[in-house]
Amino acid sequence: MPTKTFSASDIRSIDKVSRLKLINSISGFKSANLIGTADKNGNKNLAIFSSVVHVGSNPPLLGFITRPETVPRHTYQNIKETGWYTINHIHSGIYEQAHKTSGKYREDLSEFEEVDLTPFYSDDCAAPYVKKARICMGMQFVEEHFIEANGTVLLVGAIEEILLGDNYRSEDGALDLEQAQTVAISGISSYHFTQRLDKLEYVRVPEELSRE
Amino acid sequence: MPTKTFSASDIRSIDKVSRLKLINSISGFKSANLIGTADKNGNKNLAIFSSVVHVGSNPPLLGFITRPETVPRHTYQNIKETGWYTINHIHSGIYEQAHKTSGKYREDLSEFEEVDLTPFYSDDCAAPYVKKARICMGMQFVEEHFIEANGTVLLVGAIEEILLGDNYRSEDGALDLEQAQTVAISGISSYHFTQRLDKLEYVRVPEELSRE
Repeated sequence: MPTKTFSASDIRSIDKVSRLKLINSISGFKSANLIGTADKNGNKNLAIFSSVVHVGSNPPLLGFITRPETVPRHTYQNIKETGWYTINHIHSGIYEQAHKTSGKYREDLSEFEEVDLTPFYSDDCAAPYVKKARICMGMQFVEEHFIEANGTVLLVGAIEEILLGDNYRSEDGALDLEQAQTVAISGISSYHFTQRLDKLEYVRVPEELSRE
Repeated sequence: MPTKTFSASDIRSIDKVSRLKLINSISGFKSANLIGTADKNGNKNLAIFSSVVHVGSNPPLLGFITRPETVPRHTYQNIKETGWYTINHIHSGIYEQAHKTSGKYREDLSEFEEVDLTPFYSDDCAAPYVKKARICMGMQFVEEHFIEANGTVLLVGAIEEILLGDNYRSEDGALDLEQAQTVAISGISSYHFTQRLDKLEYVRVPEELSRE
Protein backbone atom coordinates (compact mmCIF):
# COMPACT_ATOMS: atom_id res chain seq x y z
CA MET A 1 0.00 0.00 0.00
CA PRO A 2 1.34 3.43 -0.96
CA THR A 3 2.59 5.18 2.16
CA LYS A 4 4.40 8.26 0.92
CA THR A 5 2.03 11.13 0.08
CA PHE A 6 2.67 14.31 -1.88
CA SER A 7 -0.22 16.74 -1.52
CA ALA A 8 -1.03 19.35 -4.17
CA SER A 9 0.95 21.94 -2.18
CA ASP A 10 3.87 19.51 -1.72
CA ILE A 11 3.94 19.05 -5.51
CA ARG A 12 3.91 22.80 -6.11
CA SER A 13 6.77 23.32 -3.66
CA ILE A 14 9.15 20.89 -5.43
CA ASP A 15 11.86 22.83 -7.30
CA LYS A 16 11.10 23.41 -10.97
CA VAL A 17 13.57 20.98 -12.61
CA SER A 18 12.86 18.19 -10.15
CA ARG A 19 9.10 18.62 -10.61
CA LEU A 20 9.50 18.62 -14.40
CA LYS A 21 11.28 15.26 -14.14
CA LEU A 22 8.77 13.85 -11.64
CA ILE A 23 5.68 14.79 -13.64
CA ASN A 24 7.21 13.72 -16.95
CA SER A 25 7.80 10.24 -15.53
CA ILE A 26 4.48 9.81 -13.75
CA SER A 27 2.24 8.82 -16.67
CA GLY A 28 4.18 5.54 -17.09
CA PHE A 29 6.16 4.38 -20.12
CA LYS A 30 5.76 6.51 -23.22
CA SER A 31 5.91 5.90 -26.95
CA ALA A 32 9.12 6.99 -28.69
CA ASN A 33 8.59 8.54 -32.10
CA LEU A 34 10.17 10.94 -34.55
CA ILE A 35 7.77 13.22 -36.40
CA GLY A 36 8.94 14.31 -39.85
CA THR A 37 7.54 17.35 -41.63
CA ALA A 38 8.42 19.84 -44.37
CA ASP A 39 7.21 23.36 -45.05
CA LYS A 40 5.73 24.34 -48.43
CA ASN A 41 9.23 25.12 -49.72
CA GLY A 42 10.47 21.65 -48.81
CA ASN A 43 12.54 22.64 -45.74
CA LYS A 44 12.51 19.55 -43.58
CA ASN A 45 12.05 19.23 -39.82
CA LEU A 46 12.43 16.23 -37.51
CA ALA A 47 11.43 16.20 -33.85
CA ILE A 48 11.17 13.63 -31.07
CA PHE A 49 7.80 13.13 -29.38
CA SER A 50 6.84 10.91 -26.46
CA SER A 51 3.16 11.85 -26.54
CA VAL A 52 1.86 9.89 -29.56
CA VAL A 53 -1.33 8.15 -28.43
CA HIS A 54 -3.84 5.74 -30.00
CA VAL A 55 -7.15 7.46 -30.74
CA GLY A 56 -9.00 4.81 -32.74
CA SER A 57 -8.67 1.89 -35.16
CA ASN A 58 -11.56 2.48 -37.54
CA PRO A 59 -10.81 4.96 -39.00
CA PRO A 60 -7.14 4.58 -37.98
CA LEU A 61 -6.32 7.70 -35.91
CA LEU A 62 -3.37 8.77 -33.77
CA GLY A 63 -2.95 11.89 -31.66
CA PHE A 64 -0.05 13.76 -30.08
CA ILE A 65 0.35 16.70 -27.75
CA THR A 66 2.46 19.68 -28.80
CA ARG A 67 3.03 23.31 -27.91
CA PRO A 68 2.07 25.38 -30.94
CA GLU A 69 3.96 28.49 -29.84
CA THR A 70 7.19 27.00 -28.54
CA VAL A 71 9.79 24.36 -29.45
CA PRO A 72 9.52 22.25 -31.60
CA ARG A 73 7.09 24.61 -33.25
CA HIS A 74 8.12 23.76 -36.82
CA THR A 75 6.33 20.44 -36.50
CA TYR A 76 3.03 22.16 -35.77
CA GLN A 77 3.50 24.92 -38.36
CA ASN A 78 4.49 22.51 -41.12
CA ILE A 79 1.55 20.20 -40.45
CA LYS A 80 -0.86 23.13 -40.55
CA GLU A 81 0.79 24.37 -43.75
CA THR A 82 0.86 21.11 -45.72
CA GLY A 83 -1.55 18.78 -43.93
CA TRP A 84 1.05 16.00 -43.86
CA TYR A 85 3.51 14.44 -41.39
CA THR A 86 5.23 11.13 -40.74
CA ILE A 87 5.52 9.20 -37.48
CA ASN A 88 8.61 6.98 -37.27
CA HIS A 89 9.26 4.55 -34.40
CA ILE A 90 12.55 5.10 -32.59
CA HIS A 91 14.48 1.84 -32.31
CA SER A 92 17.61 0.98 -30.37
CA GLY A 93 19.83 1.73 -33.39
CA ILE A 94 18.78 5.38 -33.69
CA TYR A 95 17.73 6.51 -30.19
CA GLU A 96 20.83 8.70 -29.66
CA GLN A 97 20.29 10.51 -32.95
CA ALA A 98 16.57 10.78 -32.21
CA HIS A 99 17.30 12.35 -28.80
CA LYS A 100 19.53 14.97 -30.45
CA THR A 101 16.58 16.33 -32.44
CA SER A 102 15.45 17.95 -29.15
CA GLY A 103 18.32 20.45 -29.50
CA LYS A 104 17.52 24.02 -30.48
CA TYR A 105 19.07 24.31 -33.92
CA ARG A 106 19.22 27.45 -36.05
CA GLU A 107 16.10 28.14 -38.13
CA ASP A 108 17.90 27.47 -41.43
CA LEU A 109 19.17 24.03 -40.38
CA SER A 110 17.32 20.71 -40.66
CA GLU A 111 17.50 18.21 -37.82
CA PHE A 112 17.70 15.43 -40.42
CA GLU A 113 21.17 16.68 -41.38
CA GLU A 114 22.27 17.84 -37.93
CA VAL A 115 21.62 14.44 -36.32
CA ASP A 116 22.60 12.50 -39.44
CA LEU A 117 19.32 10.74 -40.18
CA THR A 118 18.61 10.52 -43.91
CA PRO A 119 15.09 11.47 -45.05
CA PHE A 120 13.18 9.77 -47.84
CA TYR A 121 9.82 10.25 -49.52
CA SER A 122 7.19 7.72 -50.56
CA ASP A 123 4.90 8.31 -53.55
CA ASP A 124 1.82 8.96 -51.45
CA CYS A 125 2.95 11.13 -48.51
CA ALA A 126 4.11 14.76 -48.80
CA ALA A 127 6.22 14.63 -45.60
CA PRO A 128 9.68 13.08 -45.20
CA TYR A 129 10.20 9.70 -43.53
CA VAL A 130 13.30 8.54 -41.60
CA LYS A 131 15.18 6.10 -43.81
CA LYS A 132 16.61 4.10 -40.90
CA ALA A 133 13.22 3.67 -39.20
CA ARG A 134 11.62 0.23 -39.31
CA ILE A 135 7.99 1.16 -38.63
CA CYS A 136 6.64 4.40 -40.15
CA MET A 137 3.26 5.95 -40.79
CA GLY A 138 2.28 8.61 -43.32
CA MET A 139 -0.24 10.87 -41.57
CA GLN A 140 -2.76 13.44 -42.70
CA PHE A 141 -4.04 16.16 -40.37
CA VAL A 142 -7.66 15.65 -39.24
CA GLU A 143 -8.43 17.97 -36.32
CA GLU A 144 -6.86 19.83 -33.41
CA HIS A 145 -7.99 20.73 -29.90
CA PHE A 146 -6.53 23.56 -27.85
CA ILE A 147 -6.04 22.59 -24.23
CA GLU A 148 -6.88 25.73 -22.32
CA ALA A 149 -5.26 24.67 -19.06
CA ASN A 150 -1.73 25.04 -20.44
CA GLY A 151 -1.84 26.20 -24.06
CA THR A 152 -0.91 22.86 -25.61
CA VAL A 153 -2.70 21.24 -28.53
CA LEU A 154 -3.91 17.71 -29.20
CA LEU A 155 -3.32 17.16 -32.88
CA VAL A 156 -5.24 14.22 -34.41
CA GLY A 157 -4.30 12.64 -37.73
CA ALA A 158 -5.33 9.73 -39.92
CA ILE A 159 -2.92 6.95 -40.90
CA GLU A 160 -2.79 7.10 -44.71
CA GLU A 161 0.18 4.78 -45.23
CA ILE A 162 2.20 2.25 -43.25
CA LEU A 163 5.81 1.40 -44.16
CA LEU A 164 7.62 -1.54 -42.59
CA GLY A 165 11.30 -2.41 -42.94
CA ASP A 166 10.58 -6.11 -42.64
CA ASN A 167 7.63 -8.25 -41.77
CA TYR A 168 7.15 -7.17 -38.17
CA ARG A 169 3.54 -8.36 -38.10
CA SER A 170 2.62 -11.26 -35.85
CA GLU A 171 0.23 -13.96 -37.06
CA ASP A 172 -2.70 -12.19 -35.41
CA GLY A 173 -2.00 -8.94 -37.28
CA ALA A 174 -0.37 -6.97 -34.43
CA LEU A 175 3.12 -5.53 -34.86
CA ASP A 176 5.89 -7.23 -32.92
CA LEU A 177 7.54 -4.09 -31.51
CA GLU A 178 10.31 -6.09 -29.87
CA GLN A 179 11.36 -7.66 -33.16
CA ALA A 180 11.60 -4.12 -34.59
CA GLN A 181 13.52 -3.05 -31.43
CA THR A 182 11.17 -0.13 -30.85
CA VAL A 183 12.11 1.56 -27.56
CA ALA A 184 10.00 3.10 -24.80
CA ILE A 185 10.71 6.40 -23.03
CA SER A 186 10.35 7.29 -19.36
CA GLY A 187 10.68 10.82 -18.08
CA ILE A 188 12.46 13.21 -20.38
CA SER A 189 15.57 11.25 -21.25
CA SER A 190 15.45 7.54 -20.32
CA TYR A 191 15.27 5.00 -23.13
CA HIS A 192 14.20 1.42 -22.48
CA PHE A 193 14.29 -1.97 -24.14
CA THR A 194 11.34 -4.20 -23.44
CA GLN A 195 10.80 -7.88 -22.85
CA ARG A 196 7.38 -9.43 -23.22
CA LEU A 197 6.00 -10.64 -19.93
CA ASP A 198 2.75 -12.02 -21.31
CA LYS A 199 0.14 -11.80 -24.05
CA LEU A 200 -3.29 -12.23 -22.54
CA GLU A 201 -6.55 -13.35 -24.09
CA TYR A 202 -9.69 -11.33 -24.60
CA VAL A 203 -11.51 -11.34 -21.24
CA ARG A 204 -14.71 -13.42 -21.27
CA VAL A 205 -16.82 -12.82 -18.17
CA PRO A 206 -18.84 -15.85 -16.89
CA GLU A 207 -22.47 -15.54 -18.01
CA GLU A 208 -23.90 -14.97 -14.50
CA LEU A 209 -21.56 -12.02 -13.97
CA SER A 210 -21.78 -10.57 -17.48
CA ARG A 211 -23.92 -7.69 -18.70
CA GLU A 212 -24.18 -9.12 -22.21
CA MET B 1 14.88 1.32 -45.29
CA PRO B 2 11.21 0.35 -45.04
CA THR B 3 10.27 -1.74 -48.05
CA LYS B 4 6.82 -3.09 -47.30
CA THR B 5 4.06 -0.56 -47.99
CA PHE B 6 0.42 -0.59 -46.95
CA SER B 7 -1.57 2.10 -48.75
CA ALA B 8 -4.72 3.63 -47.27
CA SER B 9 -6.82 1.18 -49.29
CA ASP B 10 -4.62 -1.76 -48.24
CA ILE B 11 -5.22 -0.75 -44.60
CA ARG B 12 -8.97 -0.53 -45.13
CA SER B 13 -9.05 -3.97 -46.75
CA ILE B 14 -7.41 -5.77 -43.79
CA ASP B 15 -10.01 -7.81 -41.89
CA LYS B 16 -11.51 -6.03 -38.88
CA VAL B 17 -9.84 -7.95 -36.02
CA SER B 18 -6.44 -7.98 -37.67
CA ARG B 19 -6.65 -4.24 -38.39
CA LEU B 20 -7.71 -3.55 -34.80
CA LYS B 21 -4.57 -5.34 -33.60
CA LEU B 22 -2.33 -3.66 -36.17
CA ILE B 23 -3.49 -0.11 -35.44
CA ASN B 24 -3.49 -0.65 -31.68
CA SER B 25 0.17 -1.65 -31.84
CA ILE B 26 1.35 1.04 -34.25
CA SER B 27 1.70 4.00 -31.88
CA GLY B 28 4.57 2.24 -30.04
CA PHE B 29 4.68 1.21 -26.39
CA LYS B 30 1.83 2.49 -24.25
CA SER B 31 1.39 3.40 -20.60
CA ALA B 32 -0.41 0.81 -18.46
CA ASN B 33 -2.77 2.31 -15.90
CA LEU B 34 -5.87 1.50 -13.90
CA ILE B 35 -8.35 4.35 -13.51
CA GLY B 36 -10.44 4.22 -10.33
CA THR B 37 -13.71 6.11 -9.95
CA ALA B 38 -16.91 6.04 -7.90
CA ASP B 39 -20.38 7.41 -8.59
CA LYS B 40 -22.10 9.82 -6.17
CA ASN B 41 -23.50 6.83 -4.25
CA GLY B 42 -20.04 5.36 -3.76
CA ASN B 43 -20.34 2.53 -6.30
CA LYS B 44 -16.77 1.90 -7.43
CA ASN B 45 -15.42 1.27 -10.91
CA LEU B 46 -11.97 0.22 -12.08
CA ALA B 47 -10.83 0.15 -15.71
CA ILE B 48 -7.59 -0.42 -17.60
CA PHE B 49 -6.37 2.33 -19.93
CA SER B 50 -3.36 2.40 -22.24
CA SER B 51 -3.94 5.97 -23.44
CA VAL B 52 -2.78 8.04 -20.45
CA VAL B 53 -0.52 10.77 -21.85
CA HIS B 54 1.57 13.60 -20.40
CA VAL B 55 0.01 17.01 -21.12
CA GLY B 56 2.18 19.33 -19.03
CA SER B 57 4.28 19.68 -15.89
CA ASN B 58 3.32 23.13 -14.66
CA PRO B 59 0.49 22.84 -13.80
CA PRO B 60 0.81 19.02 -13.64
CA LEU B 61 -1.68 17.68 -16.21
CA LEU B 62 -2.39 14.25 -17.68
CA GLY B 63 -4.85 13.28 -20.40
CA PHE B 64 -6.47 10.06 -21.58
CA ILE B 65 -8.69 9.02 -24.47
CA THR B 66 -12.01 7.32 -23.77
CA ARG B 67 -15.30 6.53 -25.48
CA PRO B 68 -18.03 8.33 -23.54
CA GLU B 69 -20.86 6.22 -24.92
CA THR B 70 -19.36 2.75 -24.79
CA VAL B 71 -17.28 0.54 -22.48
CA PRO B 72 -15.83 1.43 -20.00
CA ARG B 73 -18.35 4.24 -19.79
CA HIS B 74 -18.61 4.23 -16.00
CA THR B 75 -15.19 5.82 -15.84
CA TYR B 76 -16.34 8.79 -17.89
CA GLN B 77 -19.74 9.11 -16.18
CA ASN B 78 -18.26 8.91 -12.69
CA ILE B 79 -15.61 11.53 -13.45
CA LYS B 80 -18.23 13.88 -14.85
CA GLU B 81 -20.44 13.21 -11.81
CA THR B 82 -17.84 13.68 -9.05
CA GLY B 83 -14.91 15.47 -10.69
CA TRP B 84 -12.44 12.94 -9.25
CA TYR B 85 -10.50 9.87 -10.42
CA THR B 86 -7.30 8.01 -9.61
CA ILE B 87 -4.59 6.79 -11.98
CA ASN B 88 -2.68 3.75 -10.71
CA HIS B 89 0.38 2.29 -12.47
CA ILE B 90 0.05 -1.37 -13.40
CA HIS B 91 3.09 -3.32 -12.18
CA SER B 92 4.17 -6.87 -12.90
CA GLY B 93 2.43 -8.14 -9.73
CA ILE B 94 -1.06 -7.02 -10.78
CA TYR B 95 -1.11 -7.02 -14.59
CA GLU B 96 -3.33 -10.09 -14.88
CA GLN B 97 -5.92 -8.65 -12.51
CA ALA B 98 -5.65 -5.29 -14.30
CA HIS B 99 -6.30 -6.95 -17.68
CA LYS B 100 -9.45 -8.60 -16.30
CA THR B 101 -11.03 -5.19 -15.67
CA SER B 102 -11.59 -5.04 -19.45
CA GLY B 103 -14.34 -7.68 -19.07
CA LYS B 104 -17.96 -6.61 -19.41
CA TYR B 105 -19.30 -7.12 -15.89
CA ARG B 106 -22.90 -6.63 -14.78
CA GLU B 107 -23.84 -3.05 -13.90
CA ASP B 108 -24.26 -3.85 -10.19
CA LEU B 109 -20.79 -5.37 -9.85
CA SER B 110 -17.51 -3.54 -9.15
CA GLU B 111 -14.37 -4.55 -11.00
CA PHE B 112 -12.41 -4.00 -7.76
CA GLU B 113 -14.19 -7.06 -6.30
CA GLU B 114 -14.46 -9.07 -9.49
CA VAL B 115 -10.71 -8.93 -10.19
CA ASP B 116 -9.78 -9.01 -6.49
CA LEU B 117 -8.01 -5.65 -6.20
CA THR B 118 -8.75 -3.92 -2.91
CA PRO B 119 -9.66 -0.21 -3.07
CA PHE B 120 -8.62 2.40 -0.54
CA TYR B 121 -9.25 6.10 -0.04
CA SER B 122 -6.88 8.90 0.92
CA ASP B 123 -8.06 11.94 2.88
CA ASP B 124 -7.85 14.31 -0.07
CA CYS B 125 -9.21 12.41 -3.08
CA ALA B 126 -12.87 11.40 -3.55
CA ALA B 127 -12.06 8.47 -5.88
CA PRO B 128 -10.77 5.02 -4.87
CA TYR B 129 -7.12 4.03 -5.30
CA VAL B 130 -5.77 0.51 -5.90
CA LYS B 131 -4.18 -0.68 -2.66
CA LYS B 132 -1.61 -2.90 -4.37
CA ALA B 133 -0.43 -0.14 -6.72
CA ARG B 134 2.97 1.41 -6.08
CA ILE B 135 2.59 4.70 -7.95
CA CYS B 136 -0.81 6.44 -7.85
CA MET B 137 -2.18 9.87 -8.62
CA GLY B 138 -5.32 11.55 -7.32
CA MET B 139 -6.79 13.49 -10.26
CA GLN B 140 -9.34 16.24 -10.64
CA PHE B 141 -11.21 16.82 -13.91
CA VAL B 142 -10.09 19.96 -15.77
CA GLU B 143 -11.46 19.89 -19.34
CA GLU B 144 -12.60 17.56 -22.12
CA HIS B 145 -12.39 17.65 -25.90
CA PHE B 146 -14.69 15.68 -28.20
CA ILE B 147 -12.82 14.18 -31.11
CA GLU B 148 -15.24 14.48 -33.98
CA ALA B 149 -13.49 11.97 -36.25
CA ASN B 150 -14.52 8.98 -34.13
CA GLY B 151 -16.60 10.13 -31.16
CA THR B 152 -13.91 9.65 -28.53
CA VAL B 153 -12.99 12.20 -25.87
CA LEU B 154 -9.67 13.52 -24.58
CA LEU B 155 -10.20 14.01 -20.87
CA VAL B 156 -7.62 16.26 -19.16
CA GLY B 157 -7.10 16.29 -15.39
CA ALA B 158 -4.80 17.88 -12.84
CA ILE B 159 -2.62 15.84 -10.48
CA GLU B 160 -3.81 16.80 -6.98
CA GLU B 161 -2.00 14.09 -5.03
CA ILE B 162 0.79 11.57 -5.59
CA LEU B 163 1.05 8.37 -3.53
CA LEU B 164 4.13 6.17 -3.65
CA GLY B 165 4.56 2.74 -2.07
CA ASP B 166 8.24 3.33 -1.51
CA ASN B 167 10.77 5.91 -2.51
CA TYR B 168 10.77 5.32 -6.25
CA ARG B 169 12.24 8.77 -6.95
CA SER B 170 15.73 8.97 -8.43
CA GLU B 171 18.19 11.58 -7.20
CA ASP B 172 17.18 13.93 -10.01
CA GLY B 173 13.50 13.81 -9.02
CA ALA B 174 12.25 11.46 -11.77
CA LEU B 175 10.45 8.25 -10.84
CA ASP B 176 12.36 5.02 -11.40
CA LEU B 177 9.58 3.06 -13.13
CA GLU B 178 11.71 -0.07 -13.31
CA GLN B 179 12.22 -0.15 -9.56
CA ALA B 180 8.43 0.05 -9.19
CA GLN B 181 8.11 -2.69 -11.88
CA THR B 182 5.65 -0.58 -13.88
CA VAL B 183 4.84 -2.39 -17.13
CA ALA B 184 4.29 -1.15 -20.69
CA ILE B 185 1.55 -2.32 -23.06
CA SER B 186 1.73 -3.00 -26.78
CA GLY B 187 -1.34 -3.67 -28.87
CA ILE B 188 -4.43 -4.70 -26.96
CA SER B 189 -3.04 -7.46 -24.75
CA SER B 190 0.78 -7.62 -24.57
CA TYR B 191 2.47 -6.66 -21.32
CA HIS B 192 6.17 -5.85 -21.20
CA PHE B 193 8.96 -5.50 -18.66
CA THR B 194 11.55 -2.87 -19.50
CA GLN B 195 15.28 -2.56 -19.12
CA ARG B 196 16.97 0.82 -19.26
CA LEU B 197 19.14 1.20 -22.33
CA ASP B 198 20.38 4.70 -21.55
CA LYS B 199 19.66 7.96 -19.80
CA LEU B 200 20.77 10.83 -22.01
CA GLU B 201 21.72 14.39 -21.15
CA TYR B 202 19.93 17.56 -22.12
CA VAL B 203 21.00 18.34 -25.70
CA ARG B 204 23.26 21.39 -25.96
CA VAL B 205 23.72 22.54 -29.54
CA PRO B 206 27.13 24.09 -30.41
CA GLU B 207 26.84 27.90 -30.45
CA GLU B 208 27.39 28.27 -34.20
CA LEU B 209 24.47 25.89 -34.92
CA SER B 210 22.16 27.12 -32.17
CA ARG B 211 19.24 29.53 -32.44
CA GLU B 212 19.68 30.74 -28.87
